[in-house]
Amino acid sequence: MRLREIAELVGAELVGDGEKEVKKLSPLHSADCNSLTFLTNPKYKEQAIKSEALAILTNSKENFEGKILLIHKNPYSAWAKLLRVFYKEKEFLKGIDRTAIVDKSSKIEENCHIGAYVVMGRNCVVKEGVVIEPHCVIGDNCIIGENCHLYPRVVLYDNVELSKRVILHSGVVVGSDGFGYAEDEGKIRKVPQVGSVLIEDDVEIGANTTVDRGSLEKTILGAGSKIDNLCQIAHNVTLGKNCVIIAQSGISGSTQLGDGVIMSGQSGSVGHIKIGSFSIIGAKSAVTKDVPYKSHYTGIPAQDHKKYLKEQAILRRIDKLYETLKKIKEIKDDRD
Amino acid sequence: MRLREIAELVGAELVGDGEKEVKKLSPLHSADCNSLTFLTNPKYKEQAIKSEALAILTNSKENFEGKILLIHKNPYSAWAKLLRVFYKEKEFLKGIDRTAIVDKSSKIEENCHIGAYVVMGRNCVVKEGVVIEPHCVIGDNCIIGENCHLYPRVVLYDNVELSKRVILHSGVVVGSDGFGYAEDEGKIRKVPQVGSVLIEDDVEIGANTTVDRGSLEKTILGAGSKIDNLCQIAHNVTLGKNCVIIAQSGISGSTQLGDGVIMSGQSGSVGHIKIGSFSIIGAKSAVTKDVPYKSHYTGIPAQDHKKYLKEQAILRRIDKLYETLKKIKEIKDDRD
Amino acid sequence: MRLREIAELVGAELVGDGEKEVKKLSPLHSADCNSLTFLTNPKYKEQAIKSEALAILTNSKENFEGKILLIHKNPYSAWAKLLRVFYKEKEFLKGIDRTAIVDKSSKIEENCHIGAYVVMGRNCVVKEGVVIEPHCVIGDNCIIGENCHLYPRVVLYDNVELSKRVILHSGVVVGSDGFGYAEDEGKIRKVPQVGSVLIEDDVEIGANTTVDRGSLEKTILGAGSKIDNLCQIAHNVTLGKNCVIIAQSGISGSTQLGDGVIMSGQSGSVGHIKIGSFSIIGAKSAVTKDVPYKSHYTGIPAQDHKKYLKEQAILRRIDKLYETLKKIKEIKDDRD
Repeated sequence: MRLREIAELVGAELVGDGEKEVKKLSPLHSADCNSLTFLTNPKYKEQAIKSEALAILTNSKENFEGKILLIHKNPYSAWAKLLRVFYKEKEFLKGIDRTAIVDKSSKIEENCHIGAYVVMGRNCVVKEGVVIEPHCVIGDNCIIGENCHLYPRVVLYDNVELSKRVILHSGVVVGSDGFGYAEDEGKIRKVPQVGSVLIEDDVEIGANTTVDRGSLEKTILGAGSKIDNLCQIAHNVTLGKNCVIIAQSGISGSTQLGDGVIMSGQSGSVGHIKIGSFSIIGAKSAVTKDVPYKSHYTGIPAQDHKKYLKEQAILRRIDKLYETLKKIKEIKDDRD
Repeated sequence: MRLREIAELVGAELVGDGEKEVKKLSPLHSADCNSLTFLTNPKYKEQAIKSEALAILTNSKENFEGKILLIHKNPYSAWAKLLRVFYKEKEFLKGIDRTAIVDKSSKIEENCHIGAYVVMGRNCVVKEGVVIEPHCVIGDNCIIGENCHLYPRVVLYDNVELSKRVILHSGVVVGSDGFGYAEDEGKIRKVPQVGSVLIEDDVEIGANTTVDRGSLEKTILGAGSKIDNLCQIAHNVTLGKNCVIIAQSGISGSTQLGDGVIMSGQSGSVGHIKIGSFSIIGAKSAVTKDVPYKSHYTGIPAQDHKKYLKEQAILRRIDKLYETLKKIKEIKDDRD
Repeated sequence: MRLREIAELVGAELVGDGEKEVKKLSPLHSADCNSLTFLTNPKYKEQAIKSEALAILTNSKENFEGKILLIHKNPYSAWAKLLRVFYKEKEFLKGIDRTAIVDKSSKIEENCHIGAYVVMGRNCVVKEGVVIEPHCVIGDNCIIGENCHLYPRVVLYDNVELSKRVILHSGVVVGSDGFGYAEDEGKIRKVPQVGSVLIEDDVEIGANTTVDRGSLEKTILGAGSKIDNLCQIAHNVTLGKNCVIIAQSGISGSTQLGDGVIMSGQSGSVGHIKIGSFSIIGAKSAVTKDVPYKSHYTGIPAQDHKKYLKEQAILRRIDKLYETLKKIKEIKDDRD
């Protein structure tokens, strides 16, 4: 593909010879004279100049010492578009594999791929263009919307509803029982979990993540939300639109996230609270109370990020604080 | 179902018209004039009064401004009982699916459901009333006790024993090798994990949780214990009776929990220690040493919860402490 | 097996009667008069002396009050060797199960076991001696090296390469899409993940762990590395040789570990950093920046372990610090 074609395709400004041909997309460190590469972080500018890359897709208008540039205001998004052109999506054979066991009360619409050894229960509806890869198990009364993609070995319990273009990676479990028990004379008795799960349009869920069904109503993952691997979404949780939940995070029962909330890796939240829209929760943090709109909370327990940073800065020098105080007045010290 | 029938069934005191009919069980926020709802947290009393609910199941004897009440000393437990009446448990066809592959040396007792594509090894015993849903893989020499329920895609390695009424959710792996290696001249060599796992009566394990086999003997999960999703139970761990392990927690090798221990979400423990009966470990905490009977430990590392709270309270004001000290005596400060 | 035979086999020095016969290998607490047991931790010496064990494999040359000893400089490694003798490894039938679905373009070499309901895509190569247990799903273009062992229900996405003797436990997912999204006018758009995964010789990965494919190039797990259950390895991560990643740890995108790095349980790392060879990261720690060669880092955020310990020691006495300061000068205290 010629550089001028690429520029046109993604809407980039071309600086340099547009007739040169790009044969591959490469990261900076391995780009060669056939590569288009990609730069957003100015930290790597020197590396970009020194690289053998034929051309650089960037948002920078700076001088790159003669490199051919494709300048775009959102180069990562343009890059994603190019990846779709250079790497064709895998195609799946249409039809139901002869080893798939689909209850005859379930309805599979046109242009679906139902893979080997898929098992599907009663009264399901699978809409057009769905791909269900081998070894998925779908319970009763599930709805799988247009163009959803279930990677191998996804499990949906009964009554789960996926809207359109939902992507579930291998090992995802949706609709497992929430962790609900009642103590009864010293015994722990299971509280039946009779709700369900609704996953809205364009949600993607990473490998081995678990989403529990509601106890009475629905656990809801809002449209456009992205959940990474090995996360836990407990019963009755609701996510707003476009939330981003990073790996190994967990959200406890009945907690509500607004729109655009980001939970960084290995973070968690207690149950029954609200995390305001567009809030960011720091990595490894534990949210223990409501978080206001557009906040940045960090720590265990999570607090305002600036206050957290200040606290941490002092903590890193607590030895000096301690020594100073000792000089002023002797602290009774069990170790001395 | 009439309110007086419900009162009788669960042993509640009825305050109001018992002839009214309950058509559904609803959470407070969506209850309507056909709903019985449920209240334990006095915080929501106002909401209960304002709700359209026909009646309220509660432990409170306060005035609810004319609402019909079902008063029960343990309303959550009564609620669980009602859920079982209103929502029939799913029924599974008795028998062995024609696609299940069960070694002929294994014995399946009466009234079992062995689902599609289940694979079972040699010399297993599956007792009466067991449900094994599709795609479960059972190793050799496993014992699965009366009325156990394995959701789709559970794996038992060889020699795993489940007692009665054990529930394993999708993606659970029981009996995987413990993390045991010996260093040998700079190489890391695997130590064969030749023990097994015993899961006692009424244990329930959440989706994608892993339980490693003992290195020589048994990893044991005591009767009535409940383990949430995505937890890790390492080799040789023993849980007493009625332990509660909340999501994404991990217990390292050879650690022993007494009875009734609660490990809150995302908590962990080092190996080779004892956590005393009826102890509570706070969320995100890391237990690093023995915990006495009936303790409440929190933090990283975990310490007595009251001491932890005190420490945290001071930490939240450490900036003031620092400023005060600075006024008294100049602290040598690299930042200044 | 006689004690002198065992001594010879593992190269241990025998102290006592070599004609006595060992019938089993037992842990200290349950050893009886037929048992060889094992001691490395001097803390348990008393227990060893009091045990009924016939003999003790140890590195200690101390007096054990007449117990027969096998003295070895690396007793745990010798123990591992003995376990391999006393407990034969499971044998798997050679051949392809009639229910396995292997695309005809894929090549299975000699002496492999391809279990029930395995599904394998196009153009795979499975080398000699490989065991693929039931219900594994292998994508297109995968290479599985000599003597690899995939436990039931492993998923490899397309283009994954396993070198020799790789062990993947149940529920492992290798090659799932990395968590890569570009923001585009308020929408979160998926960035195609077109790289792959290379797992080198002798790597073992625990149950339900996930390893994402590279975004453009390869996620690489270096030879001899061992990864425990429920870990998350993000896209473009590279592990050096002999790394040890303990349960529920997570490594974020593009982070590079040197050789011999140990990440303790429930630890994590941000993306795009380097952790130097032979470094140790403490349990529950969060690495936020480059870690030098042979460091020991602990905490959230992780810092030098000695500094961490000092900080923690002062923190445990912060109440005294606070009280002392209060006596000197009244701290403005919102609570007072």
